[in-house]
Amino acid sequence: MTTLARAYIAASATSPLQPGVIERREPGEFEVRIGIKFTGICHSDIHTARGDWAGVKYPVVVGHEIAGIVEAVGARVTGHAVGDRVGVGCFVDSCRECVNCRAGEEQHCQAGPVSTYNSVGRDGLPTAGGYSTSIVVDENYVLGIPDGISLEEAAPLLCAGITMYSPLRNWGAGPGKRVAIIGMGGLGHMGVKIAAALGAEVSVLSQSLKKQEDALRLGAQDYYATADTGTFEALKDHFDLIINTVSAEIDVDAYLSLLAVGGTMVMVGLPPQPLSLRTWSLAGYRRNLTGSKMGGIQQTQEMLDFCAAHGLGAEVEIIPASKINDAYERVLASDVRYRFVIDATTY
Amino acid sequence: MTTLARAYIAASATSPLQPGVIERREPGEFEVRIGIKFTGICHSDIHTARGDWAGVKYPVVVGHEIAGIVEAVGARVTGHAVGDRVGVGCFVDSCRECVNCRAGEEQHCQAGPVSTYNSVGRDGLPTAGGYSTSIVVDENYVLGIPDGISLEEAAPLLCAGITMYSPLRNWGAGPGKRVAIIGMGGLGHMGVKIAAALGAEVSVLSQSLKKQEDALRLGAQDYYATADTGTFEALKDHFDLIINTVSAEIDVDAYLSLLAVGGTMVMVGLPPQPLSLRTWSLAGYRRNLTGSKMGGIQQTQEMLDFCAAHGLGAEVEIIPASKINDAYERVLASDVRYRFVIDATTY
Repeated sequence: MTTLARAYIAASATSPLQPGVIERREPGEFEVRIGIKFTGICHSDIHTARGDWAGVKYPVVVGHEIAGIVEAVGARVTGHAVGDRVGVGCFVDSCRECVNCRAGEEQHCQAGPVSTYNSVGRDGLPTAGGYSTSIVVDENYVLGIPDGISLEEAAPLLCAGITMYSPLRNWGAGPGKRVAIIGMGGLGHMGVKIAAALGAEVSVLSQSLKKQEDALRLGAQDYYATADTGTFEALKDHFDLIINTVSAEIDVDAYLSLLAVGGTMVMVGLPPQPLSLRTWSLAGYRRNLTGSKMGGIQQTQEMLDFCAAHGLGAEVEIIPASKINDAYERVLASDVRYRFVIDATTY
Repeated sequence: MTTLARAYIAASATSPLQPGVIERREPGEFEVRIGIKFTGICHSDIHTARGDWAGVKYPVVVGHEIAGIVEAVGARVTGHAVGDRVGVGCFVDSCRECVNCRAGEEQHCQAGPVSTYNSVGRDGLPTAGGYSTSIVVDENYVLGIPDGISLEEAAPLLCAGITMYSPLRNWGAGPGKRVAIIGMGGLGHMGVKIAAALGAEVSVLSQSLKKQEDALRLGAQDYYATADTGTFEALKDHFDLIINTVSAEIDVDAYLSLLAVGGTMVMVGLPPQPLSLRTWSLAGYRRNLTGSKMGGIQQTQEMLDFCAAHGLGAEVEIIPASKINDAYERVLASDVRYRFVIDATTY
């Protein structure tokens, strides 16, 4: 027994996404079926739909910033009930047995987590993501969305939100800490909101001053144009934590020079080129270069609860499914403030 | 009024070190004059004496692993007395006012610490290091050497010891932590001893198995040959902390792959080439790449006290000054187990 769902589907790397129908299995005894209400458009969706990354199996349904309502639950589900507001992020399963899964670091599952799309589930079937009207997921990989956030503003938190919250928490953003966010896009704008809510002193480092007003409204105290050559000299040794959300190649040494002794730069944008840096940029001031990838289920729930408690959601532009292909072009042109969210009634 | 000291001096980058005489100032009111007993030979001495690094001013007297006895003290010295066993490490002064000096991170002084040699002191004169019979240093930059360590075994702790102790402590080496030391030389052998004394599970990663027996004797539990291609596969995701003591170019991605989630690799060897690595090597498992440079005065004293309490000294080969040039060749050929120490009575 399966349920049909409407979806937007990439038939190949060169096809625009088109409407269609997919099957969703009936929920197993530990699974829930979610009626999707909103799905955010993440840059990863575009890379996958267009085959920028190796290993994409077509047809594919992307989308991993999913918010909706529980429609049906398996017999032994205890954590969620029909009618609950819930979300699904970048993965829908993991091995549950390795040292990382046991530590609540399912995103680092040694067997590889089962991605929400373009992966293979425990049932041996390809996973299909959130550009659809429903999805079936094991209850342990389903997050509760607190009442304090609308579903459309919550959807992007499931990827962009946790991607920023996790490093901000893991590297101690809080009162007395100077935090810089490189890039003011889907990730960066959530980083500003969350870091400010954590009590940190937040600066944005962006190529130009175009989004300065927005950043200050969202909680940043300072905003610097990196195209201005004086910026790097003025901010030398200044920050405790820098989070780079940009996937373009960057001058790692130059950004590391902005860190105080013991400071950390976290890469969440993933430039495809190898990073190149001088050892002295690290050793000279005991600076750390690291990276981060989403967060575990427990931390993702913590993030949603934190955002609800502080009234934080993503800044979104809601679009009908028919505009997905246009939205992709606008994302690539950085023409969105700050996340597109698809209205699932329009698939 | 000055005191004459015998010394071994590099007259130029291409001259062998030669005996000679230098002047030491009378101790100022906050200074002590130390009668040097032993000085370790650090690889940095060779780089400086031979002009491998830019900015060397000749003639130069190198040596920054100094152990001796206080011979004279200025009127207002309170921390050391004539007859005390003391040491001097890589720096003899710093600005004392910047945020890093105030935090006890004098090695990261924003004005640059005054190096023990080839630097310019507060008096405007070039600093001259430990290959000599005496040295005059501000008391705040002089360490006490506890009775539990012989002076000859203590001397290398002032650079090699603190260079390993600082990252081991800062990144939490201790019971339940798996620590790898890359390279089993002057730095590496102290890393093994200190990490084992801290209670960590210590492995050595070395090109060959030549020094395996020594490493196990010094406290390592495991020893792996990195030339064996199976090593990297066998140790995947294994370590919490890796300290690289080797200055040769290394495959950073390969070593990062040996870290568990959240693990850290610290560069204390400083390859001259830029490091190249994939961002995914960091983000995939939230791994950290960092570097470290000596330690502050307070932590250096803590290290000496720790080593004395645990009966840890360097493994040394004592040489007369006339063998310094030969010893340099042997250091470059990795033919020393594990640190040459010069007997200061032979200058």
